Formats: sequence, structure tokens, C-alpha cells
Amino acid sequence: MSWEDNVRKVVPYVAGEQPRKTDIIKLNTNECPYPPAPGVGRMAAQMDYSALRLYPDQNTTILVEALADYYHVKPGQVFVGVGSDDVLSMAFMTFFNGGSPVLFPDVTYSFYDVWAEVHRIPYKTCPLDENWHIRPEDYRQPNGGVIFPNPNAPTGLTESLETVERIIRANRDVVVIVDEAYVDFGGVSALGLLEKYDNLLVVQTFSKSRAMAGMRIGFGIGNEKLIRYLNDVKFSFNSYTMNLPSQLLGAEAVRDEAYFREITGKIIATRERVKGELRKLGFTFPDSRANFIFATHPSIPAKQIFQALREADIYVRHWDKPRISEYLRITIGTDEQMDTLLAFLRDYVARVL
Amino acid sequence: MSWEDNVRKVVPYVAGEQPRKTDIIKLNTNECPYPPAPGVGRMAAQMDYSALRLYPDQNTTILVEALADYYHVKPGQVFVGVGSDDVLSMAFMTFFNGGSPVLFPDVTYSFYDVWAEVHRIPYKTCPLDENWHIRPEDYRQPNGGVIFPNPNAPTGLTESLETVERIIRANRDVVVIVDEAYVDFGGVSALGLLEKYDNLLVVQTFSKSRAMAGMRIGFGIGNEKLIRYLNDVKFSFNSYTMNLPSQLLGAEAVRDEAYFREITGKIIATRERVKGELRKLGFTFPDSRANFIFATHPSIPAKQIFQALREADIYVRHWDKPRISEYLRITIGTDEQMDTLLAFLRDYVARVL
Repeated sequence: MSWEDNVRKVVPYVAGEQPRKTDIIKLNTNECPYPPAPGVGRMAAQMDYSALRLYPDQNTTILVEALADYYHVKPGQVFVGVGSDDVLSMAFMTFFNGGSPVLFPDVTYSFYDVWAEVHRIPYKTCPLDENWHIRPEDYRQPNGGVIFPNPNAPTGLTESLETVERIIRANRDVVVIVDEAYVDFGGVSALGLLEKYDNLLVVQTFSKSRAMAGMRIGFGIGNEKLIRYLNDVKFSFNSYTMNLPSQLLGAEAVRDEAYFREITGKIIATRERVKGELRKLGFTFPDSRANFIFATHPSIPAKQIFQALREADIYVRHWDKPRISEYLRITIGTDEQMDTLLAFLRDYVARVL
Repeated sequence: MSWEDNVRKVVPYVAGEQPRKTDIIKLNTNECPYPPAPGVGRMAAQMDYSALRLYPDQNTTILVEALADYYHVKPGQVFVGVGSDDVLSMAFMTFFNGGSPVLFPDVTYSFYDVWAEVHRIPYKTCPLDENWHIRPEDYRQPNGGVIFPNPNAPTGLTESLETVERIIRANRDVVVIVDEAYVDFGGVSALGLLEKYDNLLVVQTFSKSRAMAGMRIGFGIGNEKLIRYLNDVKFSFNSYTMNLPSQLLGAEAVRDEAYFREITGKIIATRERVKGELRKLGFTFPDSRANFIFATHPSIPAKQIFQALREADIYVRHWDKPRISEYLRITIGTDEQMDTLLAFLRDYVARVL
């Protein structure tokens, strides 16, 4: 017998490429093209580094309270983690603990099946309809929990609050997680449903609309009892996960609502302009409410465009997966970055066709 | 049926008290009384906060390479995590995955049984001998893995490299984790055994000797195959756990060996002086090689001393647990802090006896 016999063997998630080259246009991992709020920079510069000798506040009070203030909920309704991936993984472990399969869409965030595998949770995917929308009736079958992003990734499509509520209402005996990583770019949040449903967990992130992917901050909001269960599991892993800079800089980011409105507004405006330009080139796409566009071209293979862009140092995302292999997910960058992309595509489409 | 039926219910770990009062002498969670290396402060002040908009390097290259350089191992032998608790929890999940019980001492770091519970790993504790030492023969029984700290906590006692090697040699078919959180205060590291044993994982932390508990950085060193398994599980949870400040500031801390030697040397000198003073007051204790002393008084109950200290705003650690309820774990602070503690105890012991 060898020690390797006892090893948990998993197929790890493969994240979007993070090229080391810096002179590229990076539209492949849905980062924000603008810097974090100016207060984040001020706080970073004035932080007393000698305080790092002490453990950080394990309750992350300053950040939890900033989020509770902003979203008009109680601090006991807020759970924070090391990116929304940490929040979601803990939620899978805490709530998807029965024997029945967890349900999520077939085309969705590619981490859900990875978490199910690593935590040994059975799961079943429900196909999106031909327009990439969720069919709420699929979520009426027996299950051990439900999770979906809204807006969905990588499609960018948002479901109405009515659809979301139908799914939650049909699943009062399990936890329903709505993953709102992209909600601030024109989606509609389920936070307003929290007063009616104690089985709802809404998860958001600082990595997109708060421009802080490098800081690793995510959060979940739910009723206090549900958040308590989540914290109990979290504290069984690690009492202190949010380091001091995350707590201080994260709170600063939340406090600057004007800046947040400004950058999300700019990204939305750029997205809508890019949609028009892509249409002129023959691309089609679901009507994204996220900070990316999921586009396909009727006559040029997606992989070919992907590789041509890459050679031009423009990085977008492409998956060799069923249903979506003819699509590119293009993050919305600055207007200047998008103009470079569009100029390349204009030239490329004309050349290839 | 309710959603609560599916919840994983755990008894969470209770960490040492983190009082919000600032004018106290805090000797209860084994933090370093000195600030991190000066380079950490310089890096914090000059960090470009706008880079936070991007995801951090998921391979944590800068920090992994700094550690590999320092410990003379290959980068592929180093795993980093959000504090050593993150590293250890991932290691439990990755390696302690058979059906047989994992073995660890009865008196030890209080997170081991918590991780076993949350990951549903059977475990069995092996009693330390009457002098608080590990009995290597206890680790010859069938098991699914072995973990122990060296020096042990909360005793502070170190086991010889021969004892450590005996345990590893007897357990080639499982992974043996040596938790060296306190090794830099006079312990002896098992890192030198890595060339001989591919089933060994050595775990250390930045929270004690590197004075960076607030940054949450821990690391494990093992053979490359073992570290690859650990990374596969880690990447199934969360691709990006080490935020940008952790990577940059952590690497700076590792690079300043002179400062590291200086502060650990000061703590060792203070510890040895405090041992002498405590002995004069009648206290006895195992001969600690860590940054704390585990002391008992023959005629005054530990809990009573604990409470008297607390009322004087001096916080130490006490557990109401079998075998150790008559002991106090006292972190080594600055000389000035320890003088205040000793003055209080001199007065208190004279008053009570």
C-alpha cells in the first residue's frame, strides 16, 4: 500500500489564462478595466504595516458592517470570504449536504461541477432553452439544492425577478443560491426576496464591479440563521481568512458609491456601443447584462477568431465545450481597448470572408 | 422537510479571545510582539493599488520562489495557503482520505479534531507521556495518516529529529504531517528528511516568527508529487486565494533573514529569562522551544490566575480541558510586557499564598 492510495484525486478547475506579458489587451477573465475607488489607494498608502503582527478581526466587522450598511441588511446577514469562489464553495459544503442531486444549468459558471466533485455532492444539469434562458419548470424536480448565476455566465443573460422567485418558491425545502457576480452591470438582484424566503443565499463579489479581483473578496447575504450555519462551517476550516488589507481596503471600496456608479455606468455604456459594432460585423449574441459579451459569428469558427486575436495580443475566452464551442466571451474593457479589438475584427472579418 | 435538514452541522473551533480593547497586554494568541520586516512596510507603502483590479497570480510565483530560495527546495515543492490553517485543512482533505483513523496527540493544536469532524475523517488521539512527550510506539498502529506539531502546542516541547524520523519511517504508507508553526524559536525542523521520505509534509506559518498573523500566510513543503495533489484539491476550491498584498508583502518578509534572526533571537532570550523568573515564583513548565510558556503553579489554580491577570488587562490562554486545566499558556511578548506580567505575578503570588 502507498500513501497515494488515500489521496483525494480531483480534476482541478482550469481558470482563464493569466499571461505574464503586460503589453496585451486582456479581455479574458472579466476583470474591471478601471482601478478600484480612490479611497482604496489612500487606505493602502496609510495602512500601519506593524498591525500585521496581530491576527485580523476574525469577524471581519469593518467589512461586514460596510456591506450591511450598503445593502440595508443586518450585519448578521452578511458572510464574507476569499472571493465569491470561497463563499460558494463553503455554501456547497454547508447546504448541499443531502443525498439528492443539486441542480444547475448546463451552460453556466464552470466551477459548480468542480465543487460538487470535490465535496462529493451528486448533481444534475438542466439545459438552458435555445435562447440561453433558464426553464424554471426544470427546477421543480426533486433535488438537494439549486444554484444559478444571474446574470448567467458565460451568456450574460439575466432572468427576471419573477423567474428567480418561481424557482425559489418551488424549492422551499432546500437552499437556493443566486450567484450575482455580474448583477451590477444591469442585472436585477434577488436581495429584495430575502424578507420572503429564508432558504435564499445571494452571493456577490468585489472582483468585477468593485475592481478588486486582486484582493479576493466575495460575500453572501441571507437570513441570519442561514449565515450562522455558513459561518460555523467556515470557522471549522480557518478562523481567520480575511487578512487585514482585505478588511480595510474592502470597506473603503464599498463606501464610495459614486465611484462605483461611475465605473459600472461606463462599462455598461461601452458594452452597448460594442454590441452595435459587433452586430455590424455579423456577430450575434445574447443580450448581455454583464461586463462581457458572448458572441458567435455565423461564418467564422470561434476558435479561429480566438487564435487570431491571441496572435494580435488580444486575449478573450473560448471553451471547447458542448453548445458553446462556437462562442467567444469578450470582457468589456476601456473604450480604447474595445476600439482596438473592433478595428482588428473589422479587418479580420473582411480578410477572412 | 426543511432546508435545514440538509445542512452540515458542526461545532466550530473557538479561537483565542481577540479583545477590542487596545490598552492591554495581549499574550493569548502567540503573536509576535515585534513588527514585520521593514521591507514589508516599504512594499506596502509603494504597492500600486490600481493593480488590484486584476486577478492575482494564481500560482503565487513570487512568494513560492522566495520560499523555495530560502529553504533550498524546488518551487514545485512549496504550497502556500491563507495561513497554515488553510494549508493544514487542505492537507487533511487531500491526504487523510482512507477509512482508518488519523492519529495525533491528545494534547495538541485544537484544530485537528475540528478538521477531522468537518471533513468526516475518523481520528484517534494518542496520549502524551507524563512529561508531555510523544510516545513514538503509539504511532505504529494501523492508521490513515499522522499529524503532530513540533514543537507541540500548547506544551512548547520539541521532539528530537530521531523521534520524528521513527514516526515517519513507521508510516510510509500514509502521509505524515509535521506542523512546525513554532519551529523558528529553537525547534528542529523535519525539512532535512524530505529527501528520504516522500510521504512527509512540513507545514510552517508567517503568523509567529515572521510577525504577519494579520496577513494570513502559511506554507507546506513536501515532495513535488505530494504538493501537486495538494494543489489539485486547492484549485478545486478556489483558483485565487492569495491576494496581491499577501504575495508581495510575504515575499519581502522571507527575504530579510537578518531581521528574522534578530526578532526570533530576542523572543528566545526573553523566553529564557522569563522561565527563570517564573521558576522563582514556584511555577513549573515543560522546557518550551516555542514563543510561549505552558506554566502551572503547585498551589494556585490556573483559572484563578487567568482571571486575576485578565482583570489587570493581561490576557493569557487557559483551557477547561482534561489534563491541561491547571496550565496557562503565556505568549512571549516584549521584555517590557513580560516585566509587567512578572511584577503582577510576584505581587499576586505573595498576596494569595
